[in-house]
Amino acid sequence: MSSTADPCQAPLGVFDSGVGGLTVVRALRELLPQESIIYLGDTARVPYGSKSPDTIRRFSVEDTQFLINHGVKAVVVACNTATAHALPLLQTTFRVPVIGVIEPGVEATLADGRAERVGIIGTAGTIRSSAYQYALAMRRPGLQIHAAATPLLVPFIEEGWTDHPTLKLVLKEYLDPLLEKGIDTLMLGCTHYPLLMPVLKKMLGRKVRLVDSASTCAAHAKEVLHQHRLLRRSRGRPALDIFLTDLSEQAETMARRFLGADFGRVKKASL
Amino acid sequence: MSSTADPCQAPLGVFDSGVGGLTVVRALRELLPQESIIYLGDTARVPYGSKSPDTIRRFSVEDTQFLINHGVKAVVVACNTATAHALPLLQTTFRVPVIGVIEPGVEATLADGRAERVGIIGTAGTIRSSAYQYALAMRRPGLQIHAAATPLLVPFIEEGWTDHPTLKLVLKEYLDPLLEKGIDTLMLGCTHYPLLMPVLKKMLGRKVRLVDSASTCAAHAKEVLHQHRLLRRSRGRPALDIFLTDLSEQAETMARRFLGADFGRVKKASL
Repeated sequence: MSSTADPCQAPLGVFDSGVGGLTVVRALRELLPQESIIYLGDTARVPYGSKSPDTIRRFSVEDTQFLINHGVKAVVVACNTATAHALPLLQTTFRVPVIGVIEPGVEATLADGRAERVGIIGTAGTIRSSAYQYALAMRRPGLQIHAAATPLLVPFIEEGWTDHPTLKLVLKEYLDPLLEKGIDTLMLGCTHYPLLMPVLKKMLGRKVRLVDSASTCAAHAKEVLHQHRLLRRSRGRPALDIFLTDLSEQAETMARRFLGADFGRVKKASL
Repeated sequence: MSSTADPCQAPLGVFDSGVGGLTVVRALRELLPQESIIYLGDTARVPYGSKSPDTIRRFSVEDTQFLINHGVKAVVVACNTATAHALPLLQTTFRVPVIGVIEPGVEATLADGRAERVGIIGTAGTIRSSAYQYALAMRRPGLQIHAAATPLLVPFIEEGWTDHPTLKLVLKEYLDPLLEKGIDTLMLGCTHYPLLMPVLKKMLGRKVRLVDSASTCAAHAKEVLHQHRLLRRSRGRPALDIFLTDLSEQAETMARRFLGADFGRVKKASL
């Protein structure tokens, strides 16, 4: 379905295990307002974070194939777990550029030369993969890296308790061991976590720099599209199509919260 | 694969969206120690509680078909969400007896004639289905019923924080509105929740009777097998086979916790 005449006109594909990846779409729309976007949220099988690498790879290939079938010019893996386990496989399997969320966060972290002790939080799957730890250590040997799996944060965000006193206690429990190590940077290794920015800023003050996956990934996507001469130049109104593998009121409500805007009808996708 | 010679020898099938249903297997093994059991946990697509009725029904039919293909004599739906949305469909689709977790809990609640104000907690899907509320109201018109979706409890249990101060705050937040209504009975409408029994007993004391899905479902399964003359009489050692659609260390660790015992190798199931 892609336009063979001008691939720049084709939409950008974005997928995530659920609706959390819409924080990346939000960042992409701010940075690349002229691009059309097709988003796939695999809400029927969400979450990926607690599942095995094999299963995550299988799901990620199916998600990417769905987007390719819809004629996208590039694919953004807006899911840290899928990036951690499946990005190399997707990049060798498909011909279009495939962009993950981990490298851009790592680059942004290291762009500040003062970073010495970096904390990373994410789902069990992301942290267990060591993808962040590995990428940081490869680029800056000697960097102190402290990673913590924080599996309760996604459920809290999905419950809408992002400013709840209990969440603050959970965050304290998760972050205290990192703070005791004296981290100067905290990487938010999950596309849900940008919604925790306000509470984290209040808790951590200015001592700890926060690096989120969503905005750094959008900046990287812009660069990749530019390199491949795939940026859309048309001034025609861009489209936003949201597909979910399971439709529920809850998912649509969350989707609005993550995207920070309303959208048309969500479509049901069958993989 | 079922034994046509003596269907009593066939195993009992049990499925759940994940490993929480192993609390039902634990109760079944206590009550029916002579029965062989085949358990299917759909860990690749867990949880069901936040997904739509259509998707839950589709998954439940696939889960049941898997157990039927393994020659089970009856199927226990050890998942409140699947029972709420799919039980009637499963009962008309398959020929073997299909047993849910909701009716037995309702019967056990009403067996105490003094129950006047009943609280129910469960996943968003279970509570939204109104299956408990409906079953209670049908049997005892005038009963006061107060239901609350408590979606953070499963993540806390899966994180192993069943005795954590933060969990107590979350429980307080969820239960206070029910306690203010003066409930005398609290139904635990999720097969994960038996692991909260100790903390709930401490919090609620003797004022509130706790009714859990797992033990009441096992008692009901025994009755159904008896009625259908399907109880296994052999004294041969019964088998326990555990299939999961996704294998991960985390799932196996949790499975041990839920079953309260060790088990042999877990097998990978493809649906």
